[in-house]
Amino acid sequence: MKTYYECIPCLLRQTVDAVRFASDDPKIHEAVLREVLKLAADMDLRQTPPMMARNIHRTIRRYSGNDDPYLQVKQDFNRMALNLYPDLKKRVTQSPDPVSTAVRLAIAGNMIDFGARRDMDQDFVLAGIQNALTCDLVGDIQAFKNAVNRADRILYLGDNTGEIVFDRLLIETLPSDKIIFAVRGYPVLNDATIEDTKEVGLFNIVKVIDNGSDAPGTILEDCSPEFAEHFNAADFVIAKGQGNYETLSDADKRIFFLLQAKCPVIAADIGCEVGRLIVKTNAER
Amino acid sequence: MKTYYECIPCLLRQTVDAVRFASDDPKIHEAVLREVLKLAADMDLRQTPPMMARNIHRTIRRYSGNDDPYLQVKQDFNRMALNLYPDLKKRVTQSPDPVSTAVRLAIAGNMIDFGARRDMDQDFVLAGIQNALTCDLVGDIQAFKNAVNRADRILYLGDNTGEIVFDRLLIETLPSDKIIFAVRGYPVLNDATIEDTKEVGLFNIVKVIDNGSDAPGTILEDCSPEFAEHFNAADFVIAKGQGNYETLSDADKRIFFLLQAKCPVIAADIGCEVGRLIVKTNAER
Repeated sequence: MKTYYECIPCLLRQTVDAVRFASDDPKIHEAVLREVLKLAADMDLRQTPPMMARNIHRTIRRYSGNDDPYLQVKQDFNRMALNLYPDLKKRVTQSPDPVSTAVRLAIAGNMIDFGARRDMDQDFVLAGIQNALTCDLVGDIQAFKNAVNRADRILYLGDNTGEIVFDRLLIETLPSDKIIFAVRGYPVLNDATIEDTKEVGLFNIVKVIDNGSDAPGTILEDCSPEFAEHFNAADFVIAKGQGNYETLSDADKRIFFLLQAKCPVIAADIGCEVGRLIVKTNAER
Repeated sequence: MKTYYECIPCLLRQTVDAVRFASDDPKIHEAVLREVLKLAADMDLRQTPPMMARNIHRTIRRYSGNDDPYLQVKQDFNRMALNLYPDLKKRVTQSPDPVSTAVRLAIAGNMIDFGARRDMDQDFVLAGIQNALTCDLVGDIQAFKNAVNRADRILYLGDNTGEIVFDRLLIETLPSDKIIFAVRGYPVLNDATIEDTKEVGLFNIVKVIDNGSDAPGTILEDCSPEFAEHFNAADFVIAKGQGNYETLSDADKRIFFLLQAKCPVIAADIGCEVGRLIVKTNAER
């Protein structure tokens, strides 16, 4: 997905949020904001929004000297989601259709996104779970199940910390030996890295790789050769969240996108209302 | 009021909205957006947000060749408000406290602001009127009434088209020979100019001047000498709306600000919640 004009104010709002998160120094806030404005003035709008977001977070890390501003938040949300895990696991195993319930929960987990909003707490997450279990989805879980059954190799692209606990629930309902779970190569926003998969018990139940990139999405030309091999070899890809949607919506690969449409640009690109839960495939490829 | 970091994404959102309003040409959209990003990268944050907004709208007019993109919208909202006028006039004259009712309606009129939001229609305005007549105000209408009674010369700074019909209601309850009503010197956003005061019947019931500036606010160093004389000579100033608040909140002049706090930055600057209706004076000066 290209960068729409509406993405620019939003990326700047994310910059203001994120630099405040990374530093208390107003001089750093201002320097970062001015540098990002300059970057934005010259950016290639055919690139996807996570390309700009990658550059924004590099700028913030460089100016603040803080390599992982969201470390505490990431640990907090992993822990919060782990506390919810036993109850959610019960809901899945007691469901008449465990895979569908787990798909819904995996999408519910995608609300834990500090790029989209910062005012999140456990009540927000619990309300989102309740909604996800009962709402109408955009898309077809049966097509997803069929694809899983037919595939030998599935690449599952994770998104955020906390959310990966919900991914664990889904992976536990699937034939996990078919699956490789991929995370970002370096800390960016509250996105999950290998360390997080160890914290939430995902590392031991599925093969985990990182993509070698520090973008909050999957910019293929930015990823490692090892990741590219797995991407190319997979029968299909499960891509979680907006960042992976934005960077892969035009990819020449069969992909199931599982996400919440949290912003009007992505909702319009998908053709749905903001807030909807999506199981979208580009199956015609 | 200085430009806060949060103002920058908001000004860019306004840019995207406004350039689409002024032109259908994506090349113009992109050129304006890039130029505004460059302006923002170098802007003096001690200046008020309407200084940047002025430069944004100049850029849009220059690139689009459209001197008054909001002309139709301005006429539509003047007409809509004029349609409401007879009923609102009855509410004022039948009120046990006509000035207070008219002050509330004048603040209600401040919701007609295309800088703050574009999805406005008559239902939105009617709901706002109903709220304004009954809600708790931030501030003291009695202090406003006392100031009016004591003053010989009052300068009333108008804000938006449509809104000026609500200003007319208030001026009709006040000793209008004491009042000079000032509007912007040139078209900018949906802000009122002299032409609009003629359309809504305000021009004939009060002395009207323009401020000589094309800023969506009152940047004193940008205004004409004639306006400055009236500003200096007034015993106090009535300033409508956010743009006038942002540009005059630090002015060395007694001012009553009548506005809706439509954005979190202004609400924080005033010390109230977003959405509140304000009668704020800097009476200690």
